[in-house]
Amino acid sequence: MAANFGSDNVTPACEPVMQALLEANRGTAASYGADDITARLQVRAAELFETEVAIFPVTTGTAANSLALSQIAAPFGAIYCYEAAHIVTDECGAPEFFTGGAKLIGLPAADGKIRPEQLTHEFGFADEMGVHHVKPAAISLTQATEWGTVYGNEELSAIGALARRRGLKVHMDGARFANALVHLKCSPAEATWKSGIDVLSLGATKNGALCAEAVVFFEPGLAADFERRRKRAGHLWSKLRFLSAQLLAYLDEEVWLKNARHANAMAAALSMGLREVPGARVLHPVEANEVFVEFPEKTVAALESAGFKFYRWPLYVSRSGVAIRLVTSYMTPKSDVEAFIAAAQRWSAA
Amino acid sequence: MAANFGSDNVTPACEPVMQALLEANRGTAASYGADDITARLQVRAAELFETEVAIFPVTTGTAANSLALSQIAAPFGAIYCYEAAHIVTDECGAPEFFTGGAKLIGLPAADGKIRPEQLTHEFGFADEMGVHHVKPAAISLTQATEWGTVYGNEELSAIGALARRRGLKVHMDGARFANALVHLKCSPAEATWKSGIDVLSLGATKNGALCAEAVVFFEPGLAADFERRRKRAGHLWSKLRFLSAQLLAYLDEEVWLKNARHANAMAAALSMGLREVPGARVLHPVEANEVFVEFPEKTVAALESAGFKFYRWPLYVSRSGVAIRLVTSYMTPKSDVEAFIAAAQRWSAA
Amino acid sequence: MAANFGSDNVTPACEPVMQALLEANRGTAASYGADDITARLQVRAAELFETEVAIFPVTTGTAANSLALSQIAAPFGAIYCYEAAHIVTDECGAPEFFTGGAKLIGLPAADGKIRPEQLTHEFGFADEMGVHHVKPAAISLTQATEWGTVYGNEELSAIGALARRRGLKVHMDGARFANALVHLKCSPAEATWKSGIDVLSLGATKNGALCAEAVVFFEPGLAADFERRRKRAGHLWSKLRFLSAQLLAYLDEEVWLKNARHANAMAAALSMGLREVPGARVLHPVEANEVFVEFPEKTVAALESAGFKFYRWPLYVSRSGVAIRLVTSYMTPKSDVEAFIAAAQRWSAA
Amino acid sequence: MAANFGSDNVTPACEPVMQALLEANRGTAASYGADDITARLQVRAAELFETEVAIFPVTTGTAANSLALSQIAAPFGAIYCYEAAHIVTDECGAPEFFTGGAKLIGLPAADGKIRPEQLTHEFGFADEMGVHHVKPAAISLTQATEWGTVYGNEELSAIGALARRRGLKVHMDGARFANALVHLKCSPAEATWKSGIDVLSLGATKNGALCAEAVVFFEPGLAADFERRRKRAGHLWSKLRFLSAQLLAYLDEEVWLKNARHANAMAAALSMGLREVPGARVLHPVEANEVFVEFPEKTVAALESAGFKFYRWPLYVSRSGVAIRLVTSYMTPKSDVEAFIAAAQRWSAA
Repeated sequence: MAANFGSDNVTPACEPVMQALLEANRGTAASYGADDITARLQVRAAELFETEVAIFPVTTGTAANSLALSQIAAPFGAIYCYEAAHIVTDECGAPEFFTGGAKLIGLPAADGKIRPEQLTHEFGFADEMGVHHVKPAAISLTQATEWGTVYGNEELSAIGALARRRGLKVHMDGARFANALVHLKCSPAEATWKSGIDVLSLGATKNGALCAEAVVFFEPGLAADFERRRKRAGHLWSKLRFLSAQLLAYLDEEVWLKNARHANAMAAALSMGLREVPGARVLHPVEANEVFVEFPEKTVAALESAGFKFYRWPLYVSRSGVAIRLVTSYMTPKSDVEAFIAAAQRWSAA
Repeated sequence: MAANFGSDNVTPACEPVMQALLEANRGTAASYGADDITARLQVRAAELFETEVAIFPVTTGTAANSLALSQIAAPFGAIYCYEAAHIVTDECGAPEFFTGGAKLIGLPAADGKIRPEQLTHEFGFADEMGVHHVKPAAISLTQATEWGTVYGNEELSAIGALARRRGLKVHMDGARFANALVHLKCSPAEATWKSGIDVLSLGATKNGALCAEAVVFFEPGLAADFERRRKRAGHLWSKLRFLSAQLLAYLDEEVWLKNARHANAMAAALSMGLREVPGARVLHPVEANEVFVEFPEKTVAALESAGFKFYRWPLYVSRSGVAIRLVTSYMTPKSDVEAFIAAAQRWSAA
Repeated sequence: MAANFGSDNVTPACEPVMQALLEANRGTAASYGADDITARLQVRAAELFETEVAIFPVTTGTAANSLALSQIAAPFGAIYCYEAAHIVTDECGAPEFFTGGAKLIGLPAADGKIRPEQLTHEFGFADEMGVHHVKPAAISLTQATEWGTVYGNEELSAIGALARRRGLKVHMDGARFANALVHLKCSPAEATWKSGIDVLSLGATKNGALCAEAVVFFEPGLAADFERRRKRAGHLWSKLRFLSAQLLAYLDEEVWLKNARHANAMAAALSMGLREVPGARVLHPVEANEVFVEFPEKTVAALESAGFKFYRWPLYVSRSGVAIRLVTSYMTPKSDVEAFIAAAQRWSAA
Repeated sequence: MAANFGSDNVTPACEPVMQALLEANRGTAASYGADDITARLQVRAAELFETEVAIFPVTTGTAANSLALSQIAAPFGAIYCYEAAHIVTDECGAPEFFTGGAKLIGLPAADGKIRPEQLTHEFGFADEMGVHHVKPAAISLTQATEWGTVYGNEELSAIGALARRRGLKVHMDGARFANALVHLKCSPAEATWKSGIDVLSLGATKNGALCAEAVVFFEPGLAADFERRRKRAGHLWSKLRFLSAQLLAYLDEEVWLKNARHANAMAAALSMGLREVPGARVLHPVEANEVFVEFPEKTVAALESAGFKFYRWPLYVSRSGVAIRLVTSYMTPKSDVEAFIAAAQRWSAA
């Protein structure tokens, strides 16, 4: 079978996560999170982030993002983000649904990273408009970004400082947080609350879990009544231990960081190989597990015909070719990377 | 350890469901429901219900109920149900959230079953009020009910016929559908669309799944755009195969019906034994896997002290005693039932 | 033309209100409330209520109620009220819409007045249910009530004290606040914040305005961001001076209280006369401008045939007859009252 | 007093509208739109638009726009419009609120007019994204636009045809519809449904009414249940005759078109004069009653100091100067126009 670079969500759950599920499946347990495993997850998360946190397991990234945003943005609030952020284009209006109508204000960013100056400009506009405009409430940053780049901690901190001055909260969509973390080579605390992040959507599904994500508040007071938001969205599992068990197994260095390191390494190898391919143009620094590369249309068509799986990226418009997205995962074999590079070589030579 | 009759959601997943999860966890698979297992579930559901259906796996009963209701009730709609239905008291406003503000109109019902005459009266009121009142849109029935009773098919059909005449849709909250079905001794088709049900929340978690429920539409046309509702609520799993696999394993007669038969038998044994206990009063016909029984306060306190797990039922107010709810499950051992009866005997004699 | 007791909203605007509109219609004025008349209204309201208030003119009672409730109840909140309160039966789900899905929990009350014991019971239920239930957030009281009775200030205070202990806010639907006030013979301050009311929907339309109501917060801090709620509901007039002018003219003792006194006096006269009619049964103390009276069906039919306008009251079910509602207004002539009593006499003798 | 070009909403109501209000204020009338004046408005609107229409008076433009959009876009729908349309920047999230979370997708347009090619591109993107993206539902066009330009009927028709092919509905925000109409020199029918418009927000407040707008559906079937939407938003007046009376008076050629002709003529005179002013740059064709003109900062500051009222336009960013918006109205005196031109001359010469 040809290599599948379509998404990291086509993977199965990794071994330690499945093992944890099996172990959790013994005997009865208190429901709705009153179980031991969930209690241990809470402890583990505090330890991992080196501060008291409130962590809430949920099933999907869309749920994590939207629940988090609904906690920090009023229905008449503005949420600033990249104009092609996942929350804008890929969640079918979930943030608007969960917040009760808050507005996502999308900002352009060639590499997926928004800048403080853009935010300052928007705040100025909001100030002039007053009550006629939605009220600046939150900023949402994707880490790693939709273009496979990673915000540096100083970039995050600059945005965080601006947010604090204006009374806004900062959300991080960390669907690929582990991938960003291994790139940054810093602690989870440094990559989040020490850099101004108030609430994190911590992804695990793409990096080895079966169906587990979490919302993490770094100031537990910010999570007041969040339990009820989760419940009324249908995201409080009765057998919550099975979500918590996945996360507890996942948040072990030998699982989440090891998995992410492998995925990032495969992406790096892929981009390195493709940079040598005539006619190929790697579009952005490859800092996580996604490679965006422009090819002539005929190369892309040939790669598709050969059975390789990947997406043509609809947001990229160019006269010179087609951009495709290649995503690697914790289980991408080196051979898939090599096969793809070889095929690209072959077809671009043709 | 003393017996746990607190809820059927304290159980682990049953063996066939866990086995199915393990089998589904092999290699990559298309995400968001484009996988083979989900396709097979669709086929199996149609076969089971003897008609073309649209089935949508989700994670929780609250999600299933609220998504289903949002599909059949406008934001300015009225949903008629029992006044202490799960959707009214136990879902933290999820139906209002998902529907965008529809109103649940709760009707009294000593045994949890609402009657056509009550609905007719309500429709008359709505007609008089016109535009000032919410518009009659849907009826939601819980099967088995919140009091452990079961609507007979003729009871359902009478409500279904009334609904059709008025243009309303009928939803069934089937969190314990399997338990009702084995009581009714009829086919799934007879228990649902042949009796006027338009959409079913099909529960599996309480009866042996890990985290699986489904919304089933018996007229696929009624499911138009439902996919987007599920997505924007954060209830579309990327690795959907893992939900579908649970349901596929569950909907095998040797699993769902066998599990339910056992739970119901244990409840029947419990109620039979308790009817012999002086001072105990079984409150309703025990037709599924729940037993409601009134005891003097001191008996209840003694049973609690002895370590038995169950709920004091807040909706029941009586001068003569306290009502408790005992729920049996697919894995309740006969010995737990016997131990409870013996303890009740002992303490009521005291 | 026969007398119209259908509603006090069939009346035209009274002379002083129309005069104020004409006077406000001179030259340009700053829009969206930055005009002088709106500023004067703010001053007048503070003077009238003897405390600093935040007052927001709006167009309808439904808007006033729903906006007020959305400010004090979260989307996952519970709002306790009389089960047939206007906000429950007559506003087509507006409170659910504006709050983003909060739940109105209706309590029975023969005379339209809910009691502290009922609330205490509900809070106990909510406490037991925890996160599965909506969170107690607010209490809404209608003054005068839907049955034409009036809460005494000590009754309000008892509810207010309970609310404060639990951290709930109290809303008053004062669609007929002036009518209640003249009955209570107390100051506006005593009838509201001194008796525990946090926010008032102050009605004027039924009592002589053209289209003016207001939301009044007695603790301006409670009104944070309320401006944006009003705006995004389409209830911020560009030419706001025309709403403010109505209210400013209305809140003159010679207008609002005089108008209400007349309406109440006519209702009192009506009920006094009807008490003498054989077969008629006045249903509740007549404390404002509404009279509910039970007649035999044939009397009601005869009165309708004679051209009198009133409503048969759908919420009242009795074997002995039909209840009708008679509403008097600031412009009800004494002769209409006398004509109605005479007709009732005549037909009940028949 | 110096001239006020801040907005056309600073004007009082014009004489015929006030006269109609006074005439409507006689005796009692059926409430909630069952009155004669509202019936006559319905007839008048059908006559005016040369087809059967459903017309719903409301109080504000924000209400008209948002209610209209909520009727044609599902909560998971996409509404395409100009990126700085009033519904995007000036209504505090009202469209999101009323639709239950639909997404406004803003498209760039230098002159405020979006083009079919832009829509086609967006639809292609939505098709590729499938269920992950909001569903194309509606297009909203502002007429006259936010930049004072006017869509030609052939431009509207091209968009209308595209919408019909894709099953989308087209909304027109006609806050300044009369101004556009007198520019187009065509019939109201030609300017709306004959050019593909499904629903119109018909503005009157800016052009001489006190507080009246209307939602007009050109296919009454499209208005199903709209009554309930209006009611639950608090936009159904009890004394609706007073809204209908304004509109009935307004929709007389000698009122709405005459008023608009004057406003447009004043804007034309203003722009003609300003084109002669050194350093001034009129930014777009002046086709309605708004003039956007760029001046050096010092000229703008001088004009402000001289007491002239207008807005600096925040959406316009330029190195060479500041853009201001000048709005004329039905009552702008020629002398104000002349005074402003003279002042601009004087200060730019300085």
